[in-house]
Order: sequence, then C-alpha cells, then structure tokens
Amino acid sequence: MTHTVISSATREVVLGFDRPFVMIGERINPTGRKLLSEEMRAGDFSRVEADAIAQVQAGAHVLDVNAGIPLADEPALLTRAIQLVQSVTDVPLSIDSSVVEALEAAIAVYDGKPLINSVTGEDEVMERVLPFVAKHGAAVVAISNDETGISEDPDVRFEVARRIVNRAADHGIPREDVVVDPLVMPIGAMGSAGQQVFRLVRRLREELQVNTTCGASNVSFGLPNRHVVTGTFLSMAMASGMTSAIMNPLHAEVRSAVQAADVLMGVDTNCASWIRNHRDPDAEVGRRVGRAGGRRARAGS
Amino acid sequence: MTHTVISSATREVVLGFDRPFVMIGERINPTGRKLLSEEMRAGDFSRVEADAIAQVQAGAHVLDVNAGIPLADEPALLTRAIQLVQSVTDVPLSIDSSVVEALEAAIAVYDGKPLINSVTGEDEVMERVLPFVAKHGAAVVAISNDETGISEDPDVRFEVARRIVNRAADHGIPREDVVVDPLVMPIGAMGSAGQQVFRLVRRLREELQVNTTCGASNVSFGLPNRHVVTGTFLSMAMASGMTSAIMNPLHAEVRSAVQAADVLMGVDTNCASWIRNHRDPDAEVGRRVGRAGGRRARAGS
Repeated sequence: MTHTVISSATREVVLGFDRPFVMIGERINPTGRKLLSEEMRAGDFSRVEADAIAQVQAGAHVLDVNAGIPLADEPALLTRAIQLVQSVTDVPLSIDSSVVEALEAAIAVYDGKPLINSVTGEDEVMERVLPFVAKHGAAVVAISNDETGISEDPDVRFEVARRIVNRAADHGIPREDVVVDPLVMPIGAMGSAGQQVFRLVRRLREELQVNTTCGASNVSFGLPNRHVVTGTFLSMAMASGMTSAIMNPLHAEVRSAVQAADVLMGVDTNCASWIRNHRDPDAEVGRRVGRAGGRRARAGS
Repeated sequence: MTHTVISSATREVVLGFDRPFVMIGERINPTGRKLLSEEMRAGDFSRVEADAIAQVQAGAHVLDVNAGIPLADEPALLTRAIQLVQSVTDVPLSIDSSVVEALEAAIAVYDGKPLINSVTGEDEVMERVLPFVAKHGAAVVAISNDETGISEDPDVRFEVARRIVNRAADHGIPREDVVVDPLVMPIGAMGSAGQQVFRLVRRLREELQVNTTCGASNVSFGLPNRHVVTGTFLSMAMASGMTSAIMNPLHAEVRSAVQAADVLMGVDTNCASWIRNHRDPDAEVGRRVGRAGGRRARAGS
C-alpha cells in the first residue's frame, strides 16, 4: 500500500488507497482573481488568511498556496504567503508555483513536510526541482507532460509519469513521495477527457502504485451547474483510484460528492464522518446559505 | 459492443457501454407504499398512472412496474398495471415480479419487447422463467444469487451471473438480452458493498460483456442525505461500467449525478443534454419545487 505523508509542524495527512480522499483547497491562487492579485501585490494578505481559514473550516485537509502574479517578486510573495498561512492554520500545505526559485525559497521557510506543486517530465525542470525536493525530504506533484506538451494519448501520459517516478528515484525520492497529476481537460472541449483520466488513474494505481491528484475544477469549465459536474467527476475518479485533488471545498456539491464517495469506497468507517456532517439537513442548508447563527442557536438548545 | 434493446410499440431504448445511462423508474412498486398498495388492491390505479407520467417527465427512459401485494391476485394486478401504464406513456417497461405466473401473464399482454425482472441463478427459477423469455423474445434481468443465497464474495456472484448467461444461451437467449444485477447492499450495513459492486460490474463488462443494472436506492438505506449517496454511487458504478439502474428519477440529486456522469463518460455528445437540462438554474429549481407554471411562462417569453 502506497502512503504519501505530508505534514505541518503539528499535523500529518496521508494519501493512500485505503484512506479518505484528501481535499486540497485551491482558493489561495491569484490566477483569475483580480482583487486577490492586486491585494497580494500591494502586500495585503488578509484575504489569503481568510481563504485559508474558510477552506479548513469547510473540510480541506491540505491547502494549496500559489502566488503567481505577473511581474511580481514571486519568491518573496510565495514565501510570505506560506508563512502567513502556516500561522493561521495547522494543515499541511502544497507549495504551488511554476517558478522554480519561488518553490525553492518557500520550501526553505516551510515548517513540516510539504507537497511541492509541481515538477513536469521536462528534463530541465526535473533536474532543477527534484534535487531540492530530495534535499528537504518533501513530496512532489508530477504533472504528466513533457517537452512535447500534453499528449492526448493517455498511454503517452502514463509513460511520462513513469519517467518522472524513475528520475525521482535516481534523486533518492521514493515512489510514495511522487503524486501524479494525470492532467484533466475541460469535458466541454474534449468529450473523452473523463474516460482518459479514469483509465490513466487506474493504470497509475495498478502499474505504478502511486497516489494521484488533479486540478478538479478544470473539468467543468464553461458548463452550467458546473459544481455538480466537478463533484461527479471526483467521485468517478475516486472509483478509478484517485486519492486527492486540488478543489474548492466551499462548494457543497463538490464537498458532498467527495464525502459520499468516501462512504462508498468503504474508507469512511461506519459512515461516521458522513453521519456527522449530514445528520441535520437544516444545518447543512444553513451552512450553504450562510445562516450559521441559526445553526449555532439550535445546537445550544 | 453489447447492445440490449427493449421497446414499447413506438419507442426503443438501448443499453450499451457507448450509450447514455438508462434510468429505469422505480416508483410503481407497492412494497413499502401502504397507500398505493391499498389502492391497487381495491382496483384504483390512478396513482400508478400519475407515477408513470411523473417519472417519464423527470427523465425516466424505462419504467419498472411491480404489483407485489400480499395475498392479492398478482398476475391480474400486474397485467392490469402493465396495460394501464402502456396506455399513458410510450416508454418500454420492466415487468417486475418474484411470482413467475405474474411475469408470464403480464408478458402476454405487453406491447413491444419488455425487460423481465427477474431470473435468479436458482435452477428451478431459470427453468421456469427462461423458456417464456425466449418464447417472447424479451430481455431479462439476471440476479446473481442462487440456492445458497447472496454470496458476500463478488467472485461467487460473478460465477452465478456467468451460469445464468450460459443457461440463457441454452434457451436461445443471446448474451445481449441478459442484463445482470450484481446486487447492491446497504453501505451503512456493509462498508465493502460499494467496492464489491464496482469490481463486479467491471468484471461483468470486461469478461462477460453484459449490460448491468441494479436497485440503486438500497445502497443508501438508513443514511442521512441519502439521495446524494445514491447519486454518487450511480456515478461511480457508471465509471466502473454499469449501464442502467432501477432508481427514482424524481430526486434531483440522483438524476443530476447520472446526467453529469453521462457527460463525463463522453456519451452526452457535446454535453447537449446537460446544457439543455441545466441551462437555467431557476428552471431547475422550478422543476424541483413544482413551479412548472412559472417555467412555462418564462419559456414563452
């Protein structure tokens, strides 16, 4: 059984086929969030802190932290964001950047064993990222594209993943510390995107025995009622063997689908988490429409 | 590719791995419905007709019709119910009884090619049911239990299914007219129930190449927020290869999960059905709370 352990100073999270699915909160990411982007650039991280707390309250087990703002000093911004988030929550973090210097600066200040997001199958990227992942004993997300781009052939993507796992091993990084992202395309643009991911995740689990993750929201891009599509996608990916995803835990449809899929995979022992989270339908509705006050009042009665 | 065709006088429905999932409406069943049971016993079939129309409007492709009322004349009741339902809707029907005489009486009045629900792997049942299924050129649901009961071992259930498929062939019933029900247990009572079904459905598809169905609602028995669990179960079963289910299409969470899973399996071409069904979020809410008038008014504006 492959267990990927990541940690903060005080908490461990384990990815594994026999474990509840790991929800990695996606919100701390200025891409497409103009206000957040402007605030972070101006040194105002209040929204980062609020997003961190809200996602953990909604059930995120890990938070992804990205500070990718054009023309900004990304290593400085990412380092600051990581430190602030670690000061307000105790969940482990995924340090997310396409700028290698930013990953390297942030990992140096991180307290615990982070998930480094990400390395690709490009030779130059592997040779720059894997050494400091190894040096810090971190885990790393392996994205299954290489110099030739993202193949539409899942078998090619499988081979890229295998190459990254092997190269990681050359650097002393064990298989369980490589979490493969099979790459999820919008289903509205490519009707085979779902089936491809399900097949690829199954092979990654059965043949490479690695844990997997993905950016889940992308699958429903452009569709109406998209959170239902994203949640349904995640449950189907879980049935195929996926063990974590970068997603938005604040959306009730997405969160509930993952929790129900945990029940159906038999990893929510005695359905205890499901029953705790869904015992009172009014409370669930209350959470969704923001009537937390009413819920608290009832709980005290 | 295995295609199971069932039909009414005017409409065909096809079960297949490359086809949208077939929703078989479960509501016309007096089991656990005291009022319906009393009405049917007294010869009042108005609720049967209303349930038929409501389920088809909600998206059911096929309707299951059961008239199992203790100490009643089930062959007469089932025959009457089948005729009435065929008079108010044009979808194909699943003729559902554990009383062989009732199945035989109802199939004789049915207009089209029905799904006979069901035959088990018990020798006596097979030898009574399969001959008239063959004679009428019907399709049949094969439930994977036998004289020894329902095995908890999915490999045993697979072998029972294989035996029924082989026996059906002896009677001249082709593989594509046998739809296997792997049997779904309540997940609250048996934590491995989901994984068992997913594995079994995959084997039934890959090794036996048969279409599959199940009574889906059973999986969430006793759990809070159960329609989300049922819908999530169906999407995961679809990812594993299931091609139909007996379910309640009136529950929005269940119906939407199936529709989203069709999108993700790539069988809802260009997401056209999804976009049509979910284009206007207000309309979806309107359907759910029964404000059909408001919806119609908007459609005309």
